[in-house]
Amino acid sequence: MKLVLLRHGESIWNQKNLFTGWTDVDLSEGGLVEASNAGDLLLSEGYDFDLCYTSFLKRSIHTLNLVLEKMDRQWLPVIKSWELNERHYGSLQGLNKSETADKFGEQQVHVWRRSFDVPPPSLDLSDQRNPALQDIYRKVDASHLPLTESLKDTIARTVPYFEEEIKPKMLEGERVLIVAHGNSLRALMMYFEGLSPDEIMKINIPTGIPLVYEFDKDFKVLSKQYLGDADVIDAKMKKVSNQGKSKK
Amino acid sequence: MKLVLLRHGESIWNQKNLFTGWTDVDLSEGGLVEASNAGDLLLSEGYDFDLCYTSFLKRSIHTLNLVLEKMDRQWLPVIKSWELNERHYGSLQGLNKSETADKFGEQQVHVWRRSFDVPPPSLDLSDQRNPALQDIYRKVDASHLPLTESLKDTIARTVPYFEEEIKPKMLEGERVLIVAHGNSLRALMMYFEGLSPDEIMKINIPTGIPLVYEFDKDFKVLSKQYLGDADVIDAKMKKVSNQGKSKK
Repeated sequence: MKLVLLRHGESIWNQKNLFTGWTDVDLSEGGLVEASNAGDLLLSEGYDFDLCYTSFLKRSIHTLNLVLEKMDRQWLPVIKSWELNERHYGSLQGLNKSETADKFGEQQVHVWRRSFDVPPPSLDLSDQRNPALQDIYRKVDASHLPLTESLKDTIARTVPYFEEEIKPKMLEGERVLIVAHGNSLRALMMYFEGLSPDEIMKINIPTGIPLVYEFDKDFKVLSKQYLGDADVIDAKMKKVSNQGKSKK
Repeated sequence: MKLVLLRHGESIWNQKNLFTGWTDVDLSEGGLVEASNAGDLLLSEGYDFDLCYTSFLKRSIHTLNLVLEKMDRQWLPVIKSWELNERHYGSLQGLNKSETADKFGEQQVHVWRRSFDVPPPSLDLSDQRNPALQDIYRKVDASHLPLTESLKDTIARTVPYFEEEIKPKMLEGERVLIVAHGNSLRALMMYFEGLSPDEIMKINIPTGIPLVYEFDKDFKVLSKQYLGDADVIDAKMKKVSNQGKSKK
């Protein structure tokens, strides 16, 4: 059984170095190119899928649309679920990462970005960024919607969704592509590989690079491989890792 | 209960005046504009949806994507089904409508295009246009896939799909948008309005113009209305009606 994970291409807020979380910002020009390249790569490497999953956020949906376009697979079923959304960044959403580092200190920002169970400061219920007040989540039970999340909180919604919705389809033989976000994909990696909180904190998933897992029938990882050029992947991982550093 | 039907924008083969059917051709530049305009119109008229249906064909899928883009509703669930595909045009697919009229006579082409139960000449099983030989229909039971279709044949797949899949969702209160094709939408109109074969043959659905039906709880039509400028709609209907005429 194979599973392909893909982190959406660069968004206009990645580019501006803002905390994004559940803010529904679109792909940048560069992100559109990354998404198309990922589609070309999957096609040229002979990948095909039966079923695609993505989040409710347009940077992921558009990445998936571009991949399907390049693969001429627009007709594949696509399931969108809020459980695959990025980690909710609470009241940091919309703040600049470098400025936040200047204000709160690099160490505090690193804790918020990379700690396992410390969520950023919460949104107020009346904040217009509260997902329960937005059209996009109107069909979701409001008691499930976060005001902020640690990675642990993200795992608590992403992993059960995978186990209940996606895993059974894979066991039926469906070839699955998941296009999602840095932290919802990190949650899945931790679960697949049995990583510790310390280990997952150090992993930076590059944007727009398909990550292929192969599992045995008991869902043990047999292999794991990023597709594409190793130098490009390495440079992208470093870029993500450096985003929380102060620019002073 | 309201239901919005939308015929995809002009395709590159509409533009070339070729019989298209199940050929998976994309929207023309003009078709992209029509789709975006339909999205703008639905937004400005205050429409919103819970659930969207479209066919397996990219001219419909892309029309729906552009509508959702304009409405900022990319996150809505979309169900793609081959049962909403255009009528299969058999071995006429790929032929020029005017040239076919010159060769077989306008009357014969009119019969193939507008008769209720006379299908165009069938594809051979070995023809690469046979849907059973194409990736896109690999999950569909081959015994359900056509080699040619009359409008009656199209109705025989589209209406049961509506009754079994879409109608129950509407009865649960879901606001539905269906983006499909001239003949799959004609099948639904005939069913909703109890039209005769003669009546449905005379109806030409314009591209890119949302058609709003309102039903009572017994699914009786209370009202029916094309959104937008009446002159534009009228001109579009005439254009569709004239496509099968010889250009000599």
